[in-house]
Amino acid sequence: MEEILKKKIEDRTAIVGVIGVGYIGLSLLEAYGNAGFQLRGFDVSQERMELLNRRKSYLNFMPLTSLFKLMDEGRFKASSNPDVLDDADILVISVPTTLDEYHNPDLTNLRAAFKTVRSHLKKDQLVILQSSTYPGTTEEELLPLLASENFKVGEDFFLAHVPEIADPGNEKFSFSQIPRIVSGITPRCLELAAMLYESLGCETFKVSSPKVAEAAKLLQNGYRLVNISFINEMKVMLEKMGIDVWEVIEAADSKPFGFQRFNPSPGAGGDCIPIAPFYMVWKARATKGPTTLLDLSGHINDKMPLYTFNKIAEGLNEKGLPVKGSKVLVLGVSYKRNVNDTRESPAIDILRFLKEHGAEVEYNDPYVEQLKRVDMKNTPLDYDKLDKYDAVVIATDHDSYQWEKVLKNSSLIIDCRNALGELEGTKSKVIKA
Amino acid sequence: MEEILKKKIEDRTAIVGVIGVGYIGLSLLEAYGNAGFQLRGFDVSQERMELLNRRKSYLNFMPLTSLFKLMDEGRFKASSNPDVLDDADILVISVPTTLDEYHNPDLTNLRAAFKTVRSHLKKDQLVILQSSTYPGTTEEELLPLLASENFKVGEDFFLAHVPEIADPGNEKFSFSQIPRIVSGITPRCLELAAMLYESLGCETFKVSSPKVAEAAKLLQNGYRLVNISFINEMKVMLEKMGIDVWEVIEAADSKPFGFQRFNPSPGAGGDCIPIAPFYMVWKARATKGPTTLLDLSGHINDKMPLYTFNKIAEGLNEKGLPVKGSKVLVLGVSYKRNVNDTRESPAIDILRFLKEHGAEVEYNDPYVEQLKRVDMKNTPLDYDKLDKYDAVVIATDHDSYQWEKVLKNSSLIIDCRNALGELEGTKSKVIKA
Repeated sequence: MEEILKKKIEDRTAIVGVIGVGYIGLSLLEAYGNAGFQLRGFDVSQERMELLNRRKSYLNFMPLTSLFKLMDEGRFKASSNPDVLDDADILVISVPTTLDEYHNPDLTNLRAAFKTVRSHLKKDQLVILQSSTYPGTTEEELLPLLASENFKVGEDFFLAHVPEIADPGNEKFSFSQIPRIVSGITPRCLELAAMLYESLGCETFKVSSPKVAEAAKLLQNGYRLVNISFINEMKVMLEKMGIDVWEVIEAADSKPFGFQRFNPSPGAGGDCIPIAPFYMVWKARATKGPTTLLDLSGHINDKMPLYTFNKIAEGLNEKGLPVKGSKVLVLGVSYKRNVNDTRESPAIDILRFLKEHGAEVEYNDPYVEQLKRVDMKNTPLDYDKLDKYDAVVIATDHDSYQWEKVLKNSSLIIDCRNALGELEGTKSKVIKA
Repeated sequence: MEEILKKKIEDRTAIVGVIGVGYIGLSLLEAYGNAGFQLRGFDVSQERMELLNRRKSYLNFMPLTSLFKLMDEGRFKASSNPDVLDDADILVISVPTTLDEYHNPDLTNLRAAFKTVRSHLKKDQLVILQSSTYPGTTEEELLPLLASENFKVGEDFFLAHVPEIADPGNEKFSFSQIPRIVSGITPRCLELAAMLYESLGCETFKVSSPKVAEAAKLLQNGYRLVNISFINEMKVMLEKMGIDVWEVIEAADSKPFGFQRFNPSPGAGGDCIPIAPFYMVWKARATKGPTTLLDLSGHINDKMPLYTFNKIAEGLNEKGLPVKGSKVLVLGVSYKRNVNDTRESPAIDILRFLKEHGAEVEYNDPYVEQLKRVDMKNTPLDYDKLDKYDAVVIATDHDSYQWEKVLKNSSLIIDCRNALGELEGTKSKVIKA
């Protein structure tokens, strides 16, 4: 009976359980909490759940003040034990989706979350899949696991897919300012999910089936992957013609229609753009669809850290130095500015290449204390001692960096973000990469 | 002395000669005319120049009223004899740039225009290259042809590149609402060109060299080619998954940042998007730069008409008909809606494939009386007799078409533009392509 749940959404007595408490999970919990719902958070990471219970955020750009207040009031419980979800009326899956070493979807997280849902499923419950995944996941994989002859979707329980659309660190768009694409297995599922998101203040864009919603999210991510790879290929192309790609982009961006600006980088990182499009590619292979542009864009993106490494090696070589034994400092190792997320960050590969070639490499990032994947710890930044490095690499341009000082005190700079672009002064020691 | 020309621009006594009087040339003439300059137009097409002199426009969406008024007043002269340019103070090159059969730049038009400029060059003249072309054209090809020991650029004459940015038929942006990227060989050249465009009411975006301006225009066109090919590949991919690309795009477009909508089509046409990016590719080959994404996007675009043809053949086959001998009507043959421009139009290839396979093919387009390339003439549209065709193909969705009638009276429709997307009624006879 959807009336029971409708009532609970209307009067905010519904308890919302979130499975997977990363950036998206936390954003959702904040939004549901602000709307007046009681909250349950479950994450397999014991470390994270302990941090939350000690009222500490693990994301530098999310202080979580409102969530900790709800925790104090007993309205938000977080645990790495799934029993915390026992009394949830609504279950939201927001686990990260990842790729395996062959660039195919690794569905481990998703399937574990599906099992957690199944073991907590009860009558009149609404289940929402929010993770980015291949078209068909909700209908072909999750639904058969939950529904049965005696437990029918759209009658006994409700199942919806609402892809999460977010831009970490973007303060221009709050949660409720981003419309949500909403889909459901049946019209009642759709209606309930739309009602829930509207109760959070979001506009909703209703589509005819979960696979349309799943595909729409992957189109958004694919669009970004293709365009980031395109502008990075243009960067390399224009460099060989002796043309500064950054000036070209500024000029092209003066067109008031039909153009969207993308910036060169050492590659796209994060948990969406380099990953989600390959859920589409994977599914397309099984259905014999063409995947050439996404495949190529992925290859270009994967090669960008190597391009940066080669630029560093060229710069050192110009100074008469080999990579081996040279002191190199990499500034910024998160995948984008002002966040502490290092997932799929191109800086990791740059650090790895430098180490493999025998450089004495350090990194600084005000948001990243350690990088286990390359067995490194943050080096505190002393602007006055930058001249002790043979090369300084600007991999990510956090706003907190003082570029004038970096420019003044370094002997060679490889600038992957045009961070020094607007500065006065000698640029002879700067290599754009 | 740039002061002489400055004065002539300020008091509008400068005479502006335009070389190449197509869509861009006419737009420029209108803008210069409206600003108060006297005009000269030269085009190698005798037919076009005669039409102008008979006060007839050859572009359906440009009535040219103001230009014909200037012609009546003797302030605008148009001719296929270059002598008409004899008294011009400013020469603007706006000839189309094309590709040869190997997809390499065909510089014939451009080089002919350069020779015309050289034979009309005089002291204190400003020459502006407005055509889209490879980075380096202005500096490496045009400048050496014009400058000499005794006739110095920036002193004796002035040379600038101002790429034309336009969207035929787009009424949202008038000429002066589109900022112009302005470059010059020397600072004086830049200053004069910027001053000229500002006198037309345009904002200007000044860049450091002509090759930056040339590259910026090609980046804009390349961006569109890549994205049109991407959405067309997504179309094919999603179709195989049983997902309607149009619904997916509508949903994805609800994202308020980081996404720009492109629509599926039988391929990108016109004189810019399928052509200009390959000027970049050509130059990149000579400088050993990577061109993989532009190359692939071009291949995908080239294949789209074949995809449409296959959809037509599939639809006919479902009805138990071979292509050979089937009656097929193609609606809309210009490259985009509401214009009469058929350059690089994918409809031409669709017509060609149909003919080659023995279909009895006709086309209707309210703006295109004949198509010499496929030796065809416009068939007047009788909505009541659409049932005599075995298939109707919507290649271009002019606003003037009455889609309800097309849907009602046709027995099989291949819709390449989702023209019937919003209509009520049976869709069983419609194939989206």
